[in-house]
Amino acid sequence: MKILALDSSGLVASVAVMEDDSLIAEFGIQYKKTHSQTLVPMMEEIRRTIDLDLASLDAVAVAAGPGSFTGLRIGSATAKGLGLALGVPLIEVPTLEGLAYNLYGSEGYVCPIMDARRGQVYTGIYEFVKEEADGGRTDEKKPEEEGAAGRKCLPGGYKMRTVQEQAAFAIEEIAGILNDLGHEAIFLGDGVPVFRDRLPELMETAYSFAPAHMNRQRAAAVAALAGVYYREGKIVSAAEHAPIYLRMSQAERERKEKEAGNR
Amino acid sequence: MKILALDSSGLVASVAVMEDDSLIAEFGIQYKKTHSQTLVPMMEEIRRTIDLDLASLDAVAVAAGPGSFTGLRIGSATAKGLGLALGVPLIEVPTLEGLAYNLYGSEGYVCPIMDARRGQVYTGIYEFVKEEADGGRTDEKKPEEEGAAGRKCLPGGYKMRTVQEQAAFAIEEIAGILNDLGHEAIFLGDGVPVFRDRLPELMETAYSFAPAHMNRQRAAAVAALAGVYYREGKIVSAAEHAPIYLRMSQAERERKEKEAGNR
Repeated sequence: MKILALDSSGLVASVAVMEDDSLIAEFGIQYKKTHSQTLVPMMEEIRRTIDLDLASLDAVAVAAGPGSFTGLRIGSATAKGLGLALGVPLIEVPTLEGLAYNLYGSEGYVCPIMDARRGQVYTGIYEFVKEEADGGRTDEKKPEEEGAAGRKCLPGGYKMRTVQEQAAFAIEEIAGILNDLGHEAIFLGDGVPVFRDRLPELMETAYSFAPAHMNRQRAAAVAALAGVYYREGKIVSAAEHAPIYLRMSQAERERKEKEAGNR
Repeated sequence: MKILALDSSGLVASVAVMEDDSLIAEFGIQYKKTHSQTLVPMMEEIRRTIDLDLASLDAVAVAAGPGSFTGLRIGSATAKGLGLALGVPLIEVPTLEGLAYNLYGSEGYVCPIMDARRGQVYTGIYEFVKEEADGGRTDEKKPEEEGAAGRKCLPGGYKMRTVQEQAAFAIEEIAGILNDLGHEAIFLGDGVPVFRDRLPELMETAYSFAPAHMNRQRAAAVAALAGVYYREGKIVSAAEHAPIYLRMSQAERERKEKEAGNR
């Protein structure tokens, strides 16, 4: 299974190629250039460097939103174009889920926050729960049998569980939800620098911030989570795909406000 | 603080630029091309894409070994050249520590394994321990005072602690150490595909494997850990730096064996 993943939902532009359990290539930048200038050239640079035959891809994954409207459109348009041209499905990874997957295996709740302007953040709450090794088979073994066979273990893993679906919230609201849950939390995302000074006033449970190598969008995390979704059959056709905006764009909002004012 | 980080210790070639808590750029590939063909062109591609002024760097970090002898020499030579030309110090990040830092915040023990051939792995054991928020100040607060002030929390974080220093071990030895520790472990590194079928026979404690986006060398993880070391003053001059080989090269070994045979 070979997946090309794109994330241009925020300030980061990131492209990754994953084959089965291996990340073959990843290129990401967090820089003021617009994604229309960087995303496709970065993809092309990866293609050239690893001699990637685009026809060998099984699917194209994309951070599907929420996020910057222009960024989402560039990511989705690129993914759609690739999907249509190559005849492969798309895997839509909600942006906040992709962000949270950076912290796979973390203790406590993972809370990505993206600055959504107008006093809001795009956010969600996720946790990593242990999966039973070998589809629950370890549970069936009786202790005495294990002793006889020499207690051996089979590999388990973590599954990401959604505690709070992604949504636009005031920072006070999401802090309130975390306080009510009463469990330690780790924050990441471009909302962190915006609300770093506000959080100590709001948080009543222990919390921390993810370090630099895992605190922003990463197409590699999108690819890894897309691999899980692909195996679960969660795919769409390139024609079906549309970004998840969560809110109206500024232009739509202003038109609605104007219409309401004219009534 | 701006750090350029390189990791060419294994099959992956990876370059990253970090500024304070932000990863500005990362480019990594896991592909059959030799690092001498890829590492510097990838660095140059990053430099061009983010308009990086190399003179603005405060330090150059490098995955210092163990690993592929040729890979380490290419990484170290590149880091030394940059350090000398720019007049900045190097930060040596032991390869296994850089690998383990991919799993910052994980529950349980992190056990990177790199295939070292001849039945051995380069490995180590690491864990992430919570740091007291605000230098331990939360401990000093009495519960009744907290109640009066409205229980507020200050951000904490994790510190990586070395449980077993990096070394060359037989896979049976490192599995034995983990079994004695009796705590859940998560494996990563290029030793995983080599020993994936052997581990169920050896492991008596619960374990799992890191997913694709965090299971190989990443210069971004090297950069983030280098940031910690930099603040602790753990730097060397470009002239002082030498890779950590841990074992003799094949050529050295064969010469020694020949000399021993001639006696």
